[in-house]
Amino acid sequence: MLDKKIFDGIFKRDKRFVSRAISIVESSEVNSVELLKQIHSKTGNAYRIGITGPPGAGKSTITNQLIKLFRKQNKSVGVIAVDPTSPFTGGALLGDRVRMNDSHNDPDVFIRSMATRGSLGGLSKKTIDAADVLDAAGFDYIIFETVGVGQSELDIAQTADSTIVVLVPESGDAIQAMKAGLMEIADFFVMNKSDRPGAENAISALKTILSLKDNHSRDWGIEIVQAVGTENKGISEIADTIQKHKNFLTSTNLLTEKRKSNMKLRIRNIIDEKLRHEIWADDRIDFLNESIGSVISAKVSPYQLSEEIIKKYKLDIAQ
Amino acid sequence: MLDKKIFDGIFKRDKRFVSRAISIVESSEVNSVELLKQIHSKTGNAYRIGITGPPGAGKSTITNQLIKLFRKQNKSVGVIAVDPTSPFTGGALLGDRVRMNDSHNDPDVFIRSMATRGSLGGLSKKTIDAADVLDAAGFDYIIFETVGVGQSELDIAQTADSTIVVLVPESGDAIQAMKAGLMEIADFFVMNKSDRPGAENAISALKTILSLKDNHSRDWGIEIVQAVGTENKGISEIADTIQKHKNFLTSTNLLTEKRKSNMKLRIRNIIDEKLRHEIWADDRIDFLNESIGSVISAKVSPYQLSEEIIKKYKLDIAQ
Repeated sequence: MLDKKIFDGIFKRDKRFVSRAISIVESSEVNSVELLKQIHSKTGNAYRIGITGPPGAGKSTITNQLIKLFRKQNKSVGVIAVDPTSPFTGGALLGDRVRMNDSHNDPDVFIRSMATRGSLGGLSKKTIDAADVLDAAGFDYIIFETVGVGQSELDIAQTADSTIVVLVPESGDAIQAMKAGLMEIADFFVMNKSDRPGAENAISALKTILSLKDNHSRDWGIEIVQAVGTENKGISEIADTIQKHKNFLTSTNLLTEKRKSNMKLRIRNIIDEKLRHEIWADDRIDFLNESIGSVISAKVSPYQLSEEIIKKYKLDIAQ
Repeated sequence: MLDKKIFDGIFKRDKRFVSRAISIVESSEVNSVELLKQIHSKTGNAYRIGITGPPGAGKSTITNQLIKLFRKQNKSVGVIAVDPTSPFTGGALLGDRVRMNDSHNDPDVFIRSMATRGSLGGLSKKTIDAADVLDAAGFDYIIFETVGVGQSELDIAQTADSTIVVLVPESGDAIQAMKAGLMEIADFFVMNKSDRPGAENAISALKTILSLKDNHSRDWGIEIVQAVGTENKGISEIADTIQKHKNFLTSTNLLTEKRKSNMKLRIRNIIDEKLRHEIWADDRIDFLNESIGSVISAKVSPYQLSEEIIKKYKLDIAQ
């Protein structure tokens, strides 16, 4: 059972309770679903911004500068830094987590790192759930910051209203081939560290690639904003472009459409995970472990064993 | 119904029938499951090699050279080039697919590109299924070649007996941070184009990173093989290292363990996909579409709607 105090705390944007609520969401207890159900009616008001890009592109710096700018506009900001730990080093991929100490005492800024080893899928789900907490707490902006590796940037694009891909001149080579996924999700680009040599070339290369692309939303021309995050250059242009994109989405009613389609995906993921959890109950995992030898020795086909396991699951349900 | 001729054709390694069988697997018909069940007893004899790495590393060249070497050893080779089309350009990420014309008339070499737009998950499943066809057809080696983007290289590592990650000196920067995933899956590395400036530095960097890593299988020291694919340099060293790794896995019984764990994952994926397919029947998709508005307007929580949909699914099963 959840204490009523926690809901009062969230709705009053008391950071202790916001933090506690996110911890509940992270630990994936039964309480999490209950909490999210109860706060849902207060959600939908925050504008959600995704910031992604390769490691070292300066995403954290830009996030920090955006927070400062939003605060000058008297807007509150919640940040979720999605931090996929590297399976290799065990360390965090997002570099500098020691930051924003000056926001620590600002009741209108809340920053939370969410890290997990292994499953990014599980991380994304928790990230989206945590954003609901920040939304219900009445933050004006929610920023998701994530390293563009593998699945995480796609997941973030599927929860953000505007997605910003941060690149640097050195990303040039990577853009053409590897970052196809990043191209697809970007509502606009930031070329950070654009005072470095090669910036012009990188921007030209990016423009060429973008010109080959059918814009997913025809009337929104994808922009490239130049910035030098460490010198606070280009930050107000980034904020302006976010606003412009928001206006575009709102005036065309695409915001609601995007949120509907994001929400459908979220629901599909919730359901798929629930079913996966159910079918992989201990007794069926045991059965899989016991039977795997006969599949490897080529007696039983994996499809045959799969059908047997599904049958067992359905018998359980029907009972 | 499948014609008996197709099975005879596969088992005789008639390339027309092998090709037809893979097309059946690709098109995901009911026939696919039937076919895979019927050939399963003939599988398990091929040695499966995964070759992955960033675009432009020379994976195709190395694959081609390996094919030639294996043919000199009188071994047969089936190749599946996993070709994730970029969602952005619509083009193929693996560059040169016009190749190996000299193998075209060799009955002991079979090369197939598998490409799909969108879901890499679906592609991996079909790749693994197609490998079963090649395995049942009696090819000695099956090579999976895939670009190391996102999920595909992980999936390939989960079906290969030995996974080779091909890098080039220019990959140096990328190694440290982005390719953590590649590090994790490599049984050994090939530093291709190692006649280029910077090769020594790249190898040192790679060694440093590897020294930080706990080897996932303690007694197998990860190796770095230097090669110049276009000049056929280092290819026999690659083949030797594959053989060495194979001997290591066999002598320690790790090969069976690895195959068991890969197969378990494959079965989990088959089952999860089947359940996803079942729950997302038309009537429940319709229900989701009709209900999504009330979630966006914050009346119904996504978790509540998810529970309703699961309930509907279970009622269907119980009937």
